[in-house]
Amino acid sequence: SSDVCSSDLSNGIVFKHPMARVKKFNETITLERAMRLFWTHGYDGTSLQMLEDEMELVRSSIYNAYGNKRALFHKAITHYKNTIIMDLIDSIDREKDIRKAVAKLLNGEVQLHFNQKNPGGCLIVLSVLEKARHGDQSTQLLESIIQKMEEFLFNKILKAQNDGQISDQINAKNTAVTIAATVLGIAVMGKAGFKKEALQQIAKTATRLLEHP
Amino acid sequence: SSDVCSSDLSNGIVFKHPMARVKKFNETITLERAMRLFWTHGYDGTSLQMLEDEMELVRSSIYNAYGNKRALFHKAITHYKNTIIMDLIDSIDREKDIRKAVAKLLNGEVQLHFNQKNPGGCLIVLSVLEKARHGDQSTQLLESIIQKMEEFLFNKILKAQNDGQISDQINAKNTAVTIAATVLGIAVMGKAGFKKEALQQIAKTATRLLEHP
Repeated sequence: SSDVCSSDLSNGIVFKHPMARVKKFNETITLERAMRLFWTHGYDGTSLQMLEDEMELVRSSIYNAYGNKRALFHKAITHYKNTIIMDLIDSIDREKDIRKAVAKLLNGEVQLHFNQKNPGGCLIVLSVLEKARHGDQSTQLLESIIQKMEEFLFNKILKAQNDGQISDQINAKNTAVTIAATVLGIAVMGKAGFKKEALQQIAKTATRLLEHP
Repeated sequence: SSDVCSSDLSNGIVFKHPMARVKKFNETITLERAMRLFWTHGYDGTSLQMLEDEMELVRSSIYNAYGNKRALFHKAITHYKNTIIMDLIDSIDREKDIRKAVAKLLNGEVQLHFNQKNPGGCLIVLSVLEKARHGDQSTQLLESIIQKMEEFLFNKILKAQNDGQISDQINAKNTAVTIAATVLGIAVMGKAGFKKEALQQIAKTATRLLEHP
């Protein structure tokens, strides 16, 4: 374990509790903890003290490993995109039936909120609304994630029309942006205390947009 | 003006700039300024210093007139409900045609975001997501505003079904909650930089939910 120790110290990483020194510094696990703090409390609501406690690192080590609070936040939302969002998109991408794919996306957002392991709501939605407080670089990333969800839906709907799954009379662009808005609305309604059944009904109802021009 | 002065001093209100002493203290105008600060920066992002500067009052006068920051925030969201939300609901309430009423609600949210006089987005949506930071009393008010929007839509859809405006086969409850989610989603998409035309298309597309069971 002295090997592990020195390898971590060579990274300039100092753990907050002496007991933790025998642990190997795991950049991803520590970043995941920061991500969940931002997801729970937002950018402004997450203090450096809270980050130190949750990441179990001293402040200088947070700076060494991730940069300042803005840089850490940017890495946290990038991690959210590469894990939470990517898992959601992947499961839909594999689903060839457009009705099932759209239902999966909408219900995925419901699950995201009601998963007991998660703080509730969606880090992207929360952070987009807090854009005045963090950096432009993060705002651009957040906006691009929402735009990409819409483009992904648009292409999926177009393909389903080409395959004859749904009517050509449906406007793919408008339907995609409306379903994207519904996904975001579900995240807000979850935070507003609506029950799981109500959010599942939204998911079910919104898929009707694929049925009629 | 000495009358005005003494009447204001009897309320314990001291303006920040001596020149302002000739003004009469207007609780509503000052509250409106606080509301717009919270709407722009959120609860945590709005400091007492920012409130002093924008409300043009010294800190002790803010406390005298409105209570502490949490109490002021609660009054600010109550003011938002009684002005912005009430105006929106009133205009829809007067509209007997359900299709036009729903379109007005959705487009009203678009206008709210793009009105140059407003900070963008919606104070209710922003504040619901920040609920960990302000008081339970405010969270309850915010949640009740969203629930009331849904109930209002539900009753309006039921009435339209009784009037024969739309099919009885449409599930009024599910349609109401889905349209409510779309209203909230529009507020998020506005903050995410989507163009006015895109949001107007969401409003138009979501009204299709009234057409087909």
